[in-house]
Amino acid sequence: MNREAPLGVFDSGLGGLTVVRALRAALPHEDIVYLGDTARVPYGTKGPATVLRYALNCTRALVDRGVKAIVIACNTVSAVAPDRLRADFDKPVLSVIEPGARAAIRSAGDGRIGVLGTTATIASGAYVRAVSANSTRCEVLGRAAPLLVPLAEEGWLEGEVPSLVVREYLQAFVGKGIGAVVLGCTHYPLFRPLIEEQVRSLLGPHVNVVDSALATADETRDFLVDRELTSTRTRPGELEFLVTDRPRSFEAVAQRFLGDAAPAATVIDL
Amino acid sequence: MNREAPLGVFDSGLGGLTVVRALRAALPHEDIVYLGDTARVPYGTKGPATVLRYALNCTRALVDRGVKAIVIACNTVSAVAPDRLRADFDKPVLSVIEPGARAAIRSAGDGRIGVLGTTATIASGAYVRAVSANSTRCEVLGRAAPLLVPLAEEGWLEGEVPSLVVREYLQAFVGKGIGAVVLGCTHYPLFRPLIEEQVRSLLGPHVNVVDSALATADETRDFLVDRELTSTRTRPGELEFLVTDRPRSFEAVAQRFLGDAAPAATVIDL
Repeated sequence: MNREAPLGVFDSGLGGLTVVRALRAALPHEDIVYLGDTARVPYGTKGPATVLRYALNCTRALVDRGVKAIVIACNTVSAVAPDRLRADFDKPVLSVIEPGARAAIRSAGDGRIGVLGTTATIASGAYVRAVSANSTRCEVLGRAAPLLVPLAEEGWLEGEVPSLVVREYLQAFVGKGIGAVVLGCTHYPLFRPLIEEQVRSLLGPHVNVVDSALATADETRDFLVDRELTSTRTRPGELEFLVTDRPRSFEAVAQRFLGDAAPAATVIDL
Repeated sequence: MNREAPLGVFDSGLGGLTVVRALRAALPHEDIVYLGDTARVPYGTKGPATVLRYALNCTRALVDRGVKAIVIACNTVSAVAPDRLRADFDKPVLSVIEPGARAAIRSAGDGRIGVLGTTATIASGAYVRAVSANSTRCEVLGRAAPLLVPLAEEGWLEGEVPSLVVREYLQAFVGKGIGAVVLGCTHYPLFRPLIEEQVRSLLGPHVNVVDSALATADETRDFLVDRELTSTRTRPGELEFLVTDRPRSFEAVAQRFLGDAAPAATVIDL
């Protein structure tokens, strides 16, 4: 494995940029190739066979670009595809659900874990399995929050509409003894201020909001360090963006989200 | 052309069911094959080249099933693809924008025409062109209303959230002398009661709401009658559903929307 090769990161759209931002903070010298499958976004409303097919396409495209490892920056894909991607491609595959679940267990104290995710992620039961695998104690309550992806993709991140949508989804957790709420979709951290405010007001001031993107970046760093797979370069890592549609609107959001670091996006066909 | 062959109707998802309902009322003896590309919904946030590619896939699948004509039950596809579909396939191709524009001209009186549509439909300028082609008088104001498609696909059709979203979109028309508002996306008639209420309260009691699905069904009937392409059968027409993902959730919405007429959906790969 060439430790100077880039990391390959993918998502259905722009949600995975929250993982890219966290990876760049945790691993500032790594080159990253990011693929957003904007021609087929969203994934979270699709069935598992379709999501798996799309995930195989994305991984193939990144592997063909010589990446040293794959980071699935999408909870929906992480819920259905990691085992198959590991079997089909000879690369390390990291996903967001295990790190998110472990961070949630640490944050929830004696409370239950509430998971907001896409319809596909919640239906998969992946967070329940990941929490059970890492704790004998924590209980998981899932709530599908599908409208947050289109709101994020439209850049409708604040104001009355997203606020009302978030409040509606959080109702599922009221009075349920929740200790931590997991942002179980990489789009959701875009609403973090709004979600934190509503979590505090509806569920209580000591309920933590867990961002699986941050937990994933930390675990990716530990994984690369343990295997001596980190780049030895000292220059800042470079970013490359690949999308399957609408590069200009992707760039606009990426710019707002990553600042000057955001490069132009290249359109590829999967 | 075999006049007993079915009509082929397609959309990105379930929005086109509003056209199917109208077609069944206008042409009760016609068989209909409906294709919802639920694996790639929504189309309205995608770029024109991607939408065209998906439209070619859908039309190919319907033509291969021997349909006598294609009804594009999607404004986004109607905005970018009809000429190309007519060039590539030896079938009549009917679309929703021309009929919607003509109905709007009749409804708007001396007022302007407000069009709610997807980002792609509004960006295409297709309604402006269709209105100009049919009237020297009417002026068109477009407003992209992209959140209504995911709300419809999720079945979130009433209550505070869609109400607030609709109100937000209609703000673009307040004080602009609007005579008619076109539901320029086949998903939007699912919100018709809510949109009509808000149009009346925000824009005035005499502003009409124009459903391009109804206008399309009427023009399709006239087209088939003029060319002697209507079925000669007297039994009720049969419906067949094809989808590219999540057949059960499609069936649930179709059932609610069409009642007993809704058959099971078959999954196909495009």
